[in-house]
Amino acid sequence: MTASSPSGSQGSTDPDAVVRAAGSRLDPWINDYALRASSMTASEIRALFAVASRPEVVSLAGGMPFVEALPLDRIADAVSRMIKERGSYALQYGSGQGDPQLREQILDVMSESGVVAHPDDIIVTTGSQMALDLAVRVFCDPGDVVLVEAPSYVGALSVFKSYECDVEHVAMDDDGLIPEALDEAIRAVKASGRRPKLIYTVPTYHNPAGVTQTPDRRHGVLEVAKKHDILVLEDDPYALLGFDGKVPRAIRADDSDQVVYLGSFSKTMAAGLRVGWAVAPHGVREKLVLASEAAVLCPSNFTQSVVSEFLAHEPWREQVDTFRDVYRERRDALLESMAQLFPEGTTWTVPQGGFYSWVTLPEGLDSSTMLPLAVSERVAYVPGTGFFADGQGRRSLRLSYCYPPPDRIREGVRRLAAVIEQELEFSKTFGTTGSRPLARGGVPNPDLA
Amino acid sequence: MTASSPSGSQGSTDPDAVVRAAGSRLDPWINDYALRASSMTASEIRALFAVASRPEVVSLAGGMPFVEALPLDRIADAVSRMIKERGSYALQYGSGQGDPQLREQILDVMSESGVVAHPDDIIVTTGSQMALDLAVRVFCDPGDVVLVEAPSYVGALSVFKSYECDVEHVAMDDDGLIPEALDEAIRAVKASGRRPKLIYTVPTYHNPAGVTQTPDRRHGVLEVAKKHDILVLEDDPYALLGFDGKVPRAIRADDSDQVVYLGSFSKTMAAGLRVGWAVAPHGVREKLVLASEAAVLCPSNFTQSVVSEFLAHEPWREQVDTFRDVYRERRDALLESMAQLFPEGTTWTVPQGGFYSWVTLPEGLDSSTMLPLAVSERVAYVPGTGFFADGQGRRSLRLSYCYPPPDRIREGVRRLAAVIEQELEFSKTFGTTGSRPLARGGVPNPDLA
Repeated sequence: MTASSPSGSQGSTDPDAVVRAAGSRLDPWINDYALRASSMTASEIRALFAVASRPEVVSLAGGMPFVEALPLDRIADAVSRMIKERGSYALQYGSGQGDPQLREQILDVMSESGVVAHPDDIIVTTGSQMALDLAVRVFCDPGDVVLVEAPSYVGALSVFKSYECDVEHVAMDDDGLIPEALDEAIRAVKASGRRPKLIYTVPTYHNPAGVTQTPDRRHGVLEVAKKHDILVLEDDPYALLGFDGKVPRAIRADDSDQVVYLGSFSKTMAAGLRVGWAVAPHGVREKLVLASEAAVLCPSNFTQSVVSEFLAHEPWREQVDTFRDVYRERRDALLESMAQLFPEGTTWTVPQGGFYSWVTLPEGLDSSTMLPLAVSERVAYVPGTGFFADGQGRRSLRLSYCYPPPDRIREGVRRLAAVIEQELEFSKTFGTTGSRPLARGGVPNPDLA
Repeated sequence: MTASSPSGSQGSTDPDAVVRAAGSRLDPWINDYALRASSMTASEIRALFAVASRPEVVSLAGGMPFVEALPLDRIADAVSRMIKERGSYALQYGSGQGDPQLREQILDVMSESGVVAHPDDIIVTTGSQMALDLAVRVFCDPGDVVLVEAPSYVGALSVFKSYECDVEHVAMDDDGLIPEALDEAIRAVKASGRRPKLIYTVPTYHNPAGVTQTPDRRHGVLEVAKKHDILVLEDDPYALLGFDGKVPRAIRADDSDQVVYLGSFSKTMAAGLRVGWAVAPHGVREKLVLASEAAVLCPSNFTQSVVSEFLAHEPWREQVDTFRDVYRERRDALLESMAQLFPEGTTWTVPQGGFYSWVTLPEGLDSSTMLPLAVSERVAYVPGTGFFADGQGRRSLRLSYCYPPPDRIREGVRRLAAVIEQELEFSKTFGTTGSRPLARGGVPNPDLA
């Protein structure tokens, strides 16, 4: 706190004191924060999204699951039953590692992805975001390097930043992360004298890229990780949401020592419960539990019991089928209308599951500077720069089809197509597009999860 | 990961490889952890508590609230109603700062402690432990100093350790933290060239000391904090559980710029919901929200909605009265039986609220070395060293009366009195007590919250 603290000027009639007090309202503690806090700043994009949340705007920005597809009456009855039967357990502090019964059930969920583990390998967390945070807390000193896809999940970038990691983006294509590029990037990091600590990947229905690693690529990524002795953080929240009903085999299914696997009930059940998990090699799992106990003592027994009840007594696989059908229809609406309406030179990925498609604008266009125009035309997206730690991605943007119904998606694409046309026109006439650069990256809004 | 990874020795018949593989089972990633993880080790005490959780042991160790006093049927109905009415909200991602309606209601709860704030000053967290973690994350670089009471809350010490802070204990007595000692400690820290960043205090019904800061002391602590421009972290989970039904005025009630106030529903409603909060000056609150979004995206809308429903439509003040009556009766049982049974030379604090009494053993006794004997005599407590970062506290221990019914408390004290007598006898005969030192401090078990 500086000398200009308001408490230091109370009752003073010195006009300078008023100025000091006014200045201090900006933040009297500004000089006291930890170094890591200097990266914690709200992005300009956030302010724009406040506008974008108005009902007249079609938001293709958010990553909110369509929880309206959940049967509320059944859930109400299940939760009521759970409280009456074991409320004294659910309302009490629990194990730092997570409810033993739920950890057993998670094995069943993960078996769909080919993951075989022991309940003791699992730690339950406040959403898988927290598992990610804990993994980085346990592994990364400031300056350690994390290798991520180009682009990567905004919420992960935010964690890496908050622990002062260096982020290196590695090329990906329609088949996902490229092992040769990963190998090369690791060599370059080592050659620069820095320490590569983690390979962070979303192999299945990638956020934001909308692509899926082929089995060959997964094998290649694992081989590179083994060769360099670097831990893989496999983030897999969308695994069960493939439109063909098949579940890609997780990287973790082929190696239990090299991989920390992150799973979540946010997309297959309900994000508002904040129940996720990590599967980790024994020693790592022990550290994660100790870190979690320092951070929150224990995850909520109550929400864990809700999930456990749902898995045990409700048709959760049918519920996943329902979600999958909803998202497939919306994905189709997005792809069809983009093909119909987007101007030539615009390209996009074709997701086989999950929530997102990654759009690349025609040469010369900038998704960040285009966003204010888009919002004024009542359509919102997330500019590509948000998914990079290094300012890349200006020509790209993420469209999500998870939340709006198909007709709204079509309307959103129609509006966005018009915005792109307008920007193209402007660019052709003046050789440049809008001039208001938006902040790069920034911290994730939950709506961007 | 070292070269002795099991994945590197698969299929090998080389006997050395077997040794390497066995060794690696200890933890092949041991050389890859962050510096901060080196402090994350499980204490010996934990192993002992696994034994202590057997039903034949009277545990005066745990800090579990007596949630059995909650009306499960009413809660089941309230939660069921909430899900039917606004399940689509409760099951969805929410605001990183927390549910606006709950933040309004928290103002009402805090008004009991004299705290006046704006809903925008509040951030809701996964238990107040998380608010504590975020505050330290935002303020403390490695080596920064946190001033805490002697003794201090074990879960807070664990957070400070995990962010590599230096902890300085400051003397307290039956009237709580001593401002003059605080002032002196801060001067000494500054003189040593280190940076004092936070004053962490539990002013009301202290965990573990069982004492309460007088109004004069609170004023004095605030004055010292202002003089040195150091933020006060006021941790206040027990505020409403005073046995005289009055609620001490919070330090935050007298200064909104100098204090981050931490509150919790764990003791007044249910710990298993993991809903706590912080009230912070504007700039600090902004940083806390950004840090929280990186850590968990958002707190659970579901558990927040449960708390909100309970506050809005259930008689929550009557529930607090019920808890208070339960704990008063247990506190009385503890104090009466200690006065009756503990050998001369044993002293303890007299809590006016909360969960704990702090016991000091006769000269020459050691609560850590005595614990194995106590557990074998079927009574458990937390040794004093757990509440210090510097090895103090060997003559002290914490007894909690929150969970066991009065007759079990009396039985526990009877057993413990016999153990102390036995140790005294041993000490008189041999001039020393048992020789098995237990690990100091360690990470909090939820049961020790």
